[in-house]
Amino acid sequence: MKFHVLTLFPDMVQNGLETSITGRAIERGTIGLNVVNIRDFSHDKHRHVDDYPYGGGAGMVMQPDPIYEAWTHVTQGMDQKPRVIYLTPQGRVFRQDMARDLAHEEEIIFLCGHYEGVDERVLDEIVTDQVSIGDYVLTGGELAAMVMIDAIARMVPGVLTNEESGTYESFYNNLLEYPQYTRPPVFRGREVPEVLLSGHHARIEEWRRRQSLERTLRHRPDLLEQADLSREDFSYLETLGYKRDSWTDQ
Amino acid sequence: MKFHVLTLFPDMVQNGLETSITGRAIERGTIGLNVVNIRDFSHDKHRHVDDYPYGGGAGMVMQPDPIYEAWTHVTQGMDQKPRVIYLTPQGRVFRQDMARDLAHEEEIIFLCGHYEGVDERVLDEIVTDQVSIGDYVLTGGELAAMVMIDAIARMVPGVLTNEESGTYESFYNNLLEYPQYTRPPVFRGREVPEVLLSGHHARIEEWRRRQSLERTLRHRPDLLEQADLSREDFSYLETLGYKRDSWTDQ
Repeated sequence: MKFHVLTLFPDMVQNGLETSITGRAIERGTIGLNVVNIRDFSHDKHRHVDDYPYGGGAGMVMQPDPIYEAWTHVTQGMDQKPRVIYLTPQGRVFRQDMARDLAHEEEIIFLCGHYEGVDERVLDEIVTDQVSIGDYVLTGGELAAMVMIDAIARMVPGVLTNEESGTYESFYNNLLEYPQYTRPPVFRGREVPEVLLSGHHARIEEWRRRQSLERTLRHRPDLLEQADLSREDFSYLETLGYKRDSWTDQ
Repeated sequence: MKFHVLTLFPDMVQNGLETSITGRAIERGTIGLNVVNIRDFSHDKHRHVDDYPYGGGAGMVMQPDPIYEAWTHVTQGMDQKPRVIYLTPQGRVFRQDMARDLAHEEEIIFLCGHYEGVDERVLDEIVTDQVSIGDYVLTGGELAAMVMIDAIARMVPGVLTNEESGTYESFYNNLLEYPQYTRPPVFRGREVPEVLLSGHHARIEEWRRRQSLERTLRHRPDLLEQADLSREDFSYLETLGYKRDSWTDQ
């Protein structure tokens, strides 16, 4: 799988993704990263890529031509044009299921906006998906693209080791994670819950499940509506005051 | 305002935030950034900071002591302990109003987790806020911390120039942005909407407002419920098929 990023801040994207698990996958060739500087396609001797908005208003707008040419440069010779994702607060909200779907693409192009925005016509011309990573405003699309690439890359087979791929599996089932503990057994007077030292696998599993249920109920009750709950889960949640009309058998 | 980041990937955070508007604000001293490597507080000659989870299970858990000592290092000599934000999918969902509130803090500490998680006891001991930037899973907390710092820094007085600070103001009122256009007047056969070239400021303003309303209705109707809508806005939305029980006068 290959990610292309059209940006005015190529170093930020390159450096930000070269560390950690994503960086390891890039190094091994499991995923590819191609960062393209939109400024390289400026027609201006000062390498400007923005201009005043038609109709007036504050700030500058990114011009359509440099972006279009950067996109042409990336897609030339491709049989099939990849999806082009424009990061914007007005896009569809990114969620884990979208990350899982996008992990099946062979290539994805991300377009990172800056300044007051991007000329609408180039969005109409090349963009296939407008996506928002959340209801907050960032100074540009770079961090949003990096967040999406990180979340998608995790789902590409071979990126995570077997050990890592268990991570947060419970989140996929719309339940929050149970608490984790490691050495030392006592930290600042706080002990590890006894059950985890018991060696009773069934009891440990039950305790963890209940912790997940309790946390989800407390912090994100909205997730429970879509969670796969067994009769036992449901009974436990009822003792905590939760009510739902139906439940699925596991 | 000063941001402290406790992380296993200090370069990623440092490089990622040194560019763009945030970088300019750090350089000018409007905001401060202090990135602390948790690994510097390892007690292990191999600089390990993680260990197997009590009770079994895949992956490794970050140990409490190195994190606690990194936090002690940052907070020593402070009269008042700053808020400590732990980035986790189970936290409260980050939104623009939270960014605005946090911009009033003098210092904030971010704790970035990795591996399967962080020992719960150190979270109980030092963390004041658990925050999620969205319903997706990342390989670590770094990108989430960078997203929050970017969104919060934008709201700190003096970080944006007057020109920039108009950006996305409409989003704050729960409306999406109107489309923007800049030169050239014709791009691949697509013309700039005529009204923007008319010089009629009132007509331009009306056109932009209607574009914002239309886009919000089409892409994020949920936002309209909280938007400040005038009678005119409401009348226009009604022509597009929108119904709301009440509206506020502007």
